[in-house]
Amino acid sequence: MTDITIIGSGNMGRGIGTRAVAAGRSVQVLDKSAEEAQKLAGELGSGATGAASTEAPAGRIVVLALPFDAAKEVVSGYGDALDGRIIIDISNPVNYETFDSLVVGPGTSAAEEIAKLAPSGATVVKAFNTTFAGTLVAGEVAGEPLDVFIASDSEDARNEVADFVTAAGLRPLQVGGLHHARELEGFQLLLMALQANPAYESFNWGTALKILG
Amino acid sequence: MTDITIIGSGNMGRGIGTRAVAAGRSVQVLDKSAEEAQKLAGELGSGATGAASTEAPAGRIVVLALPFDAAKEVVSGYGDALDGRIIIDISNPVNYETFDSLVVGPGTSAAEEIAKLAPSGATVVKAFNTTFAGTLVAGEVAGEPLDVFIASDSEDARNEVADFVTAAGLRPLQVGGLHHARELEGFQLLLMALQANPAYESFNWGTALKILG
Repeated sequence: MTDITIIGSGNMGRGIGTRAVAAGRSVQVLDKSAEEAQKLAGELGSGATGAASTEAPAGRIVVLALPFDAAKEVVSGYGDALDGRIIIDISNPVNYETFDSLVVGPGTSAAEEIAKLAPSGATVVKAFNTTFAGTLVAGEVAGEPLDVFIASDSEDARNEVADFVTAAGLRPLQVGGLHHARELEGFQLLLMALQANPAYESFNWGTALKILG
Repeated sequence: MTDITIIGSGNMGRGIGTRAVAAGRSVQVLDKSAEEAQKLAGELGSGATGAASTEAPAGRIVVLALPFDAAKEVVSGYGDALDGRIIIDISNPVNYETFDSLVVGPGTSAAEEIAKLAPSGATVVKAFNTTFAGTLVAGEVAGEPLDVFIASDSEDARNEVADFVTAAGLRPLQVGGLHHARELEGFQLLLMALQANPAYESFNWGTALKILG
C-alpha cells in the first residue's frame, strides 16, 4: 500500500508532499485535474505518482490538502473508499473576507464536521493546520523545526501521524482528542489575521508557530 | 498617578512586575496580604510600593495577576474604583484537574466575563495569558523576546498596553477585539496541557509561545 495519499495539488499539497518525500514515504497525489496531480508528483520526485481524484486513494494516510468546503465534498464523495484510513484534516474554517471569525459555530470544528462525514472505520486526525505551505517546503523557520500540533480521538492514529511528522524532520506535539481541533483552528484564525495585517507585514505567511523552550 | 497596579503577589505578579520595573514604570502591588504585597514590592525595587487590596488601585493600568475566580471577585469588589482604568486580564479559565477543558462555555471567555463586571468607564484588555511566570522574569526564552498577544475592543487601550509591552522588552501582537480572548484562552489550554504532560517533561512551564519568522 502507498504510504501517503495527498488530495489536492495546491501549496499545502506541495508542502506536505515535500515533507513526505523527505521522510522516505511513498506518495500518491490526487487532484480534480490529473495533469496538476502528475505535475506535482513530478516535482516531488522519488517515485511519487499523480492521478485524477476519480481514482481511489491508495494511501494508509490520506491528507486532505484542501480548503474546508472541498475537504467535506471529497470525504463525502469517497465514502467507503476511505474505510480503514487515517484522514488528516489540515483545514482552517476561517472567514477569509474578514479574517475575524470562523465559519463553524462554537462547540465544533472543521475536523469534527469532517469526521461526521467519514466512514466509521476511518480515523480523522487534525494536523498541519498551523504550518504555512512555504515553511513546510523549507521544513524549518529561523533554524527551528516546525511544530505540528496533532489532535485525534485515536491514540494509535496520533502516534502514526507523529511518527510521520518526526520522520519528516518536524516536531509532533499531541494535544489530545479531536475536539481540541477547536482550539487549534481558533488560534490559527489569529495567526492568519496577523499575516494579513499590514501592521505586521514582515510576517507575510512565512512564520511558524513554535513552542520555544 | 502610578503607572501600573498589579493585584496579586504570586508568580504572575512577580513576572509582570519585573517587566514593568524593567520598562521604567512606577509600580504598586496590592494583595489581600499587605505583607506579601510589600515583600514583592521590595523584591521589585525601583520605588515599587505594596499595600493591602483594601486600598484603591492607583495605577492607570491595573493588572489582575490572579486566577479567573479571584479576578472576578476583585473587579466586582472594586467597582467604580476601576473607572477610567485599563484592566488587564491575564487569566486562563482552565479546568486544572483535567487540563482538558475550559470552565467558561463556548461563545465567551474569561476576559469577556470580567468585562461584564467592570464599570462602564473601564476598558478590559486580554494580555499575558500565554506567557508563563518564569519566562516573564527572564524576559526571553532561547534568546527570543516573548510574544504578548493583546485583545481589546479599544484600539487606544491595545496601543497603550502594546507600548508597555515594548518598553518591557517584549513583542506585542495585537489580535483585535476582546472576543478574541476566546482563541487566546483556548490555545493556552493546549499549551498548559502540554506542560503538564509527562511525555513533554522538558517543557516544564518554561516555554514560550512564539511566532517565529
